[in-house]
Amino acid sequence: MARYAVAVIGATGAVGKTIVKILEERSFPVRELRLGATARSSGQVLTFHGEPVKVQETKEELFRGIDLALFAGGDTSSEQYAWRIARNGTVVVDNSSTFRLDPRVPLVIPEINAHTLRDHQGVVANPNCSTIIMLLALVPLHRAAGVRRAVVATYQSVSGAGIAAMDALQEQLRALLPHPELLMNGASPEEIEAFAGTQSPIAFNLLFQWPIAEEGFTTEEWKMIRETQKIVGEAIPIAPTTVRVPSMVGHGIALTVELNRSLSPEEAKEILRQAEGVEVLDEPSTGRFPMPIYAAGRDPVYVGRIRRDPTVPAGLHLWVVGDNLRKGAALNAVQIAETMISMGLL
Amino acid sequence: MARYAVAVIGATGAVGKTIVKILEERSFPVRELRLGATARSSGQVLTFHGEPVKVQETKEELFRGIDLALFAGGDTSSEQYAWRIARNGTVVVDNSSTFRLDPRVPLVIPEINAHTLRDHQGVVANPNCSTIIMLLALVPLHRAAGVRRAVVATYQSVSGAGIAAMDALQEQLRALLPHPELLMNGASPEEIEAFAGTQSPIAFNLLFQWPIAEEGFTTEEWKMIRETQKIVGEAIPIAPTTVRVPSMVGHGIALTVELNRSLSPEEAKEILRQAEGVEVLDEPSTGRFPMPIYAAGRDPVYVGRIRRDPTVPAGLHLWVVGDNLRKGAALNAVQIAETMISMGLL
Repeated sequence: MARYAVAVIGATGAVGKTIVKILEERSFPVRELRLGATARSSGQVLTFHGEPVKVQETKEELFRGIDLALFAGGDTSSEQYAWRIARNGTVVVDNSSTFRLDPRVPLVIPEINAHTLRDHQGVVANPNCSTIIMLLALVPLHRAAGVRRAVVATYQSVSGAGIAAMDALQEQLRALLPHPELLMNGASPEEIEAFAGTQSPIAFNLLFQWPIAEEGFTTEEWKMIRETQKIVGEAIPIAPTTVRVPSMVGHGIALTVELNRSLSPEEAKEILRQAEGVEVLDEPSTGRFPMPIYAAGRDPVYVGRIRRDPTVPAGLHLWVVGDNLRKGAALNAVQIAETMISMGLL
Repeated sequence: MARYAVAVIGATGAVGKTIVKILEERSFPVRELRLGATARSSGQVLTFHGEPVKVQETKEELFRGIDLALFAGGDTSSEQYAWRIARNGTVVVDNSSTFRLDPRVPLVIPEINAHTLRDHQGVVANPNCSTIIMLLALVPLHRAAGVRRAVVATYQSVSGAGIAAMDALQEQLRALLPHPELLMNGASPEEIEAFAGTQSPIAFNLLFQWPIAEEGFTTEEWKMIRETQKIVGEAIPIAPTTVRVPSMVGHGIALTVELNRSLSPEEAKEILRQAEGVEVLDEPSTGRFPMPIYAAGRDPVYVGRIRRDPTVPAGLHLWVVGDNLRKGAALNAVQIAETMISMGLL
């Protein structure tokens, strides 16, 4: 079997580290692994199959002879290098939002639209984390019964904002835990923020940690709306509210779906049991439902609380939880590369 | 002005303590204050206007000569005493769910349906916390433009489950904080639970902490559905998902509303600015939106992120946050009593 020279860019970040881990876990056919990061993070050493790999500063030279570059370094590094190296024959799987809506770029969840990889021009985009997790549950129902509209409320963990945000949550918790009265008695924002060491802490709180864009929607909400249309290839109206919650890894999504044709909860469960990448976990009797702390570090997207929504003719409620660093980012990126190999595109 | 002999039952709980605090803050006309709790909690001493008040075990004698009894002791004490003491002339405002749907009992949010107090038979019920917080924002829009349907996802703080749950969150956080790797790397439920000291911890997690009842909905979801109909006096279809999040005080609600008549976000803001008990906090430029840590300890229900939902003909998204112990429970109960005084019913 062919083996590949692989670069991971943004290798010291939350997604980058997870990519390296997943390449190892899945025995991805790596001939050589190069790790790139900003100058500040270069020099760090990660381990790959027991061997130390030193992180270099991301520069043009790093990509020389690279077959596959997995970008998780944010918009800047993707903008700077993706098309340049793609022209030299490197296949780029980009986790940033830079090229997701670019018509030259397939936006791929392998379980859903692997066929769009066939027309790639060297750069493939990995969708937004919440979009991936939502669509793994939504698209099988759409194919079975047609989704007319989905109202979506997210419960997104801090790891979606990177390692610094994960450290910040821990620091804020350590600072606020000895002062629970601050969280109950109407302390001013200034008092709370003095303890937490930041404006609008996420500890014990709920935030909108994304810029507000057109029409009052956050950039994250727009991603869910627009990326869905491109991935599914049809207009599925998404009505989203995206919220950051003080969990570490794993995004939760309350999904309220209006269908063209009624599905009973049992039919929906059966459809989702057959769906790739999905695990149905819906056991009222044992209290086991999809939860972030148990979905974290695992590959499937978990779906539970499947029940009829009687306020519309053919409605369903679902509760979806997935590891945003894995299926929401790193795992999906590696699966794109694996799919390209099996399709003879890499 | 008349002054009243007042009893607070469940006085050592999260809601009971807040009732005592609010009676003091609002200078409620108290002639005598008696505090009741279970045998286990009796003997504790609370302070009221600078004076110590000893908590007694709740028994029939405690209610002798009491004009107003505010119950926050859960279903058992309400079931045992409410109607018995009401027959003796005590007015009961009950925070439990026991009598909320009882046709003899007004279920009251004073800003919305104070008029139903006129027919009280001695027992008045305080609605569910999430229902109160949602309806403060929803009913003004309903009166202006008719709500056809509301899809609701809650983000409920642990204080809704009482003081023990608030202590448990803090203990779980202290236990899990030194082991962040447990929350990322696919540790088994058993491993995580060994550190957290409990099954399905709420720290860093999202839970459904209510029993699943008919049709797969939690008891909390049914409360939001059924209490809304009784309070508004009309069928407003509510499609809820209720979720517990690791915040301490303050419930968040993502509210997606379908109206009979279109309202622009500006019109909705103006309606909500005029609404009693509501404060509009919607400043994308400063990043100030309704947040639990700043709503905690305050009286208003805060509404922000007001934006059009273009997936239906006349849709709006709103984000609502209120202190579940105050307007969601204790404050609303005290306001019911104040309203009864001003209506000459007490």
